[in-house]
Amino acid sequence: MSDNRQKILEEIKVQGDLVRKLKAAKESKEKIDVEVAKLLALKAKVAEEEDEAVGGAGQKFLLKTPKGTRDYNPQQMALRQGVLDKIVTVFKKHGAESIDTPVFERKEVLTGKYGEDAKLIYDLKDQGGEILSLRYDLTVPLARYLAMSKISSIKRYHIAKVYRRDNPAMTRGRYREFYQCDFDIAGTYDLMIPDAECVKVVSEILGGLDIGDYVIKLNHRMILDGMFEACGVPADKFRSICSAVDKLDKSPWEEVKREMIDEKGLDESTADQIGEYVQQSGGLELVEKLQQDPKLSASKSAVTGLQQMKTLLKYCEVLGLRNEIRFDLSLARGLDYYTGVIYEAVLTAMPEVTNGGDVEPITVGSVAGGGRYDNLVGMFDPKGKQVPCVGVSIGVERIFSLLEAKQAAEGIKIRTTDVEVYVASAHKGLHEQRLKVITELWDGGIKAEHSYKENPKLLVQLQHCEEQGIPLALILGDAELKKGVVKLREVPTRKEEEISRENIAEELSRRLSLMRNGDF
Amino acid sequence: MSDNRQKILEEIKVQGDLVRKLKAAKESKEKIDVEVAKLLALKAKVAEEEDEAVGGAGQKFLLKTPKGTRDYNPQQMALRQGVLDKIVTVFKKHGAESIDTPVFERKEVLTGKYGEDAKLIYDLKDQGGEILSLRYDLTVPLARYLAMSKISSIKRYHIAKVYRRDNPAMTRGRYREFYQCDFDIAGTYDLMIPDAECVKVVSEILGGLDIGDYVIKLNHRMILDGMFEACGVPADKFRSICSAVDKLDKSPWEEVKREMIDEKGLDESTADQIGEYVQQSGGLELVEKLQQDPKLSASKSAVTGLQQMKTLLKYCEVLGLRNEIRFDLSLARGLDYYTGVIYEAVLTAMPEVTNGGDVEPITVGSVAGGGRYDNLVGMFDPKGKQVPCVGVSIGVERIFSLLEAKQAAEGIKIRTTDVEVYVASAHKGLHEQRLKVITELWDGGIKAEHSYKENPKLLVQLQHCEEQGIPLALILGDAELKKGVVKLREVPTRKEEEISRENIAEELSRRLSLMRNGDF
Repeated sequence: MSDNRQKILEEIKVQGDLVRKLKAAKESKEKIDVEVAKLLALKAKVAEEEDEAVGGAGQKFLLKTPKGTRDYNPQQMALRQGVLDKIVTVFKKHGAESIDTPVFERKEVLTGKYGEDAKLIYDLKDQGGEILSLRYDLTVPLARYLAMSKISSIKRYHIAKVYRRDNPAMTRGRYREFYQCDFDIAGTYDLMIPDAECVKVVSEILGGLDIGDYVIKLNHRMILDGMFEACGVPADKFRSICSAVDKLDKSPWEEVKREMIDEKGLDESTADQIGEYVQQSGGLELVEKLQQDPKLSASKSAVTGLQQMKTLLKYCEVLGLRNEIRFDLSLARGLDYYTGVIYEAVLTAMPEVTNGGDVEPITVGSVAGGGRYDNLVGMFDPKGKQVPCVGVSIGVERIFSLLEAKQAAEGIKIRTTDVEVYVASAHKGLHEQRLKVITELWDGGIKAEHSYKENPKLLVQLQHCEEQGIPLALILGDAELKKGVVKLREVPTRKEEEISRENIAEELSRRLSLMRNGDF
Repeated sequence: MSDNRQKILEEIKVQGDLVRKLKAAKESKEKIDVEVAKLLALKAKVAEEEDEAVGGAGQKFLLKTPKGTRDYNPQQMALRQGVLDKIVTVFKKHGAESIDTPVFERKEVLTGKYGEDAKLIYDLKDQGGEILSLRYDLTVPLARYLAMSKISSIKRYHIAKVYRRDNPAMTRGRYREFYQCDFDIAGTYDLMIPDAECVKVVSEILGGLDIGDYVIKLNHRMILDGMFEACGVPADKFRSICSAVDKLDKSPWEEVKREMIDEKGLDESTADQIGEYVQQSGGLELVEKLQQDPKLSASKSAVTGLQQMKTLLKYCEVLGLRNEIRFDLSLARGLDYYTGVIYEAVLTAMPEVTNGGDVEPITVGSVAGGGRYDNLVGMFDPKGKQVPCVGVSIGVERIFSLLEAKQAAEGIKIRTTDVEVYVASAHKGLHEQRLKVITELWDGGIKAEHSYKENPKLLVQLQHCEEQGIPLALILGDAELKKGVVKLREVPTRKEEEISRENIAEELSRRLSLMRNGDF
């Protein structure tokens, strides 16, 4: 470490202490900003030094993508596109329209919507003009859009990337830039009909992907609130106790209980009562049992929530959902804005991954989540007009990671192009002939490519076809061209025959169409 | 205006003057940063006041998207998806793979690539960690990806949004967040074969969209440099004179000439010589004429460039391109990184837009552009290893704007959903029956929707079908259900018939497939 760097690091420490002191003393924003600016300038100095140390003269930067992000290579893109296509097919089957919103919003749009998670929002630099932040999810932009466009009902899907300055865990599919696939139904409708359709949508999507068994957990914010009320949790602690319950998917009850008592200030008997409830899950029979529970029956919130849950379960049954769903009292969901039903889908059996006979378990968390949020649009409407909403979001990054690992283990290689015909030359001097033929193919709508070299070796060209899984190759040669024919090679079988040079696009279209129908 | 606001505005003025003075005096970055921080804090105060003034108690924010951005509503999305699908079809026809990169890059990746335009880059706020900027185009991220992944050849397309803090002109399709559709061929290949394919790709795309006639202008950086050399422009002024020439599509020659003389310091006779060249455009005959030009023949750069242009025009002819292309000496392109051929496509005839008989001209600028950039990847490779690249970018936002305006004028309404069957109830009490029927349809892969109300009015349901262009409606009624049938209504003709309730999904699939084939 250079002496200079050491000196700056010490200055940073001193300046950092000063900023913390000013903040603790609640000094004016201006005063703090001035000292923060000094601190940032010092940090920039160190960063510059580090960059220089890494590269040397010509190469001052680290060649990497930003922390928590990745490039998608063509194999990954092919997989991703396949998954997204399946998801969009389900969304469209349910009659959803699509919308799109900007990647950033005015910061104030996001403020006060995410509770503690707000610290994970990416802000843009103030370069004059508006103060902007990258979107954190697609739900808040939807609510802003509905209020701004004065739309009171819509069924829309939105597939786009969102941004969270979270701790990345990239092998498990947790990134700072990641896709969300959202389906939401906005409008004033009758009880649980749209809510049940969201469950159906999740089930169709997860059932259609090769990711093994899953269960969609269901709960209701009013049941949770009623339960807290019945157990004697003070009303102002509902949300923070809800956050504690939310950790039950990762931590054992004993740990969550300790958090409730030590950090959230509940007394032990209250925590124990909560513990008895949240360890229950089941179906209609559990709802009916809880409806008989004298403590819950005293809570208006619990009574309403249970009644709604009963309706939801009944509709789910009509929609053909039974084993895939479970009413689970431990499901809480982190976000503040939910007001009714909440959902979360998890994989139950890890997909079998055979890598030379071994089974490698892949751990992924929840793969879908959502719920009802009836008050979010009203937060944006100038007159506070509400538009009730319910929706689900598919956690595709986790699904991508899982399928990627699975394909790698099984040695599956997906094609990354759709090329149907490769135009090759058998010897030198034929590149203009190739261009003529391939022009006819392209103009005839055939997916075709050729070498960008004037005189490529035949073997190299044929190898390319086999590696890329291109089904047909046309091989041009002077002798054949003089006879008015070209050689057509079926790449997988290596069978060759001569076909007429004339109307070549038509002939190939005919053959490709037969091959697509499996008649070739 | 409040007294307080007035006072702060005065403080801002004083502080702004101070910052400018420090910058002019080239004071240390730290010292300037401190004063800039004070300035920003003052500005934030005014912004807060303004927000409060706009909204009032409950509503502190402006309900809008950030400057230069827009939401896409379902109609716009349907149009956009249609255009993008056509573009992707062409990219795939040419065998391109796709990749994706993060929306932001480490700032240093973008530094020094865009010349003067770098001031338009969006930076992210320093929240600790890396210093990031939003991508400005898809070309620099591609070069970074190729160097980082050590890829020496790829043919890839990338469709994604890029960000520029430019002056928006939204009616003409110029936004701060906008789509680029890029097709690039990277690799060491033979002269002009990939370059010509890029022209073919642009021509297939523009020819396949309903946007009227176009011309693809072609030029070569080496011809431009040779021309500057021949006219006596000092070598260090090539790029800045190139920028001036680039303005010829918007400004008359006299204006550009004045800029060359008054701002760029050329003498008048040099400018006049340039003027004679850049007003020429044509085909192969122009290349051959210029090859005879004694001044150009003395420039090695011009000789090479003209020879390459000749090859490109010859290949274009083989690819069936003739009237769509023009060698144009005034084409310069703004970006620094081009090293060879440059392209730009412009619409020549404005599409006819009849709005009650009127023709409304829509002005759009260039709709595609690109060129060869052989040195960009080497700027990222630790050992400076080059990967030659050539590519084009389709300016889809302008195409969207144009088609939107056209459809609006022609009164065309595109469907925003793909719903094939609507399940309606003829009277009260049938919502569970509807759920049963629609579950069968969904499970049978049919795109279907129904009302989310328990007891919707029949008329409302049928109106929804007509407005949304849904072709078929099933109407459930107790009388029919008892007989084991349901009513099937052809929405456009309002013809109704009874079909069996049993195997209803199969029967509807059969009919829908006939309808798709036009046999219904």
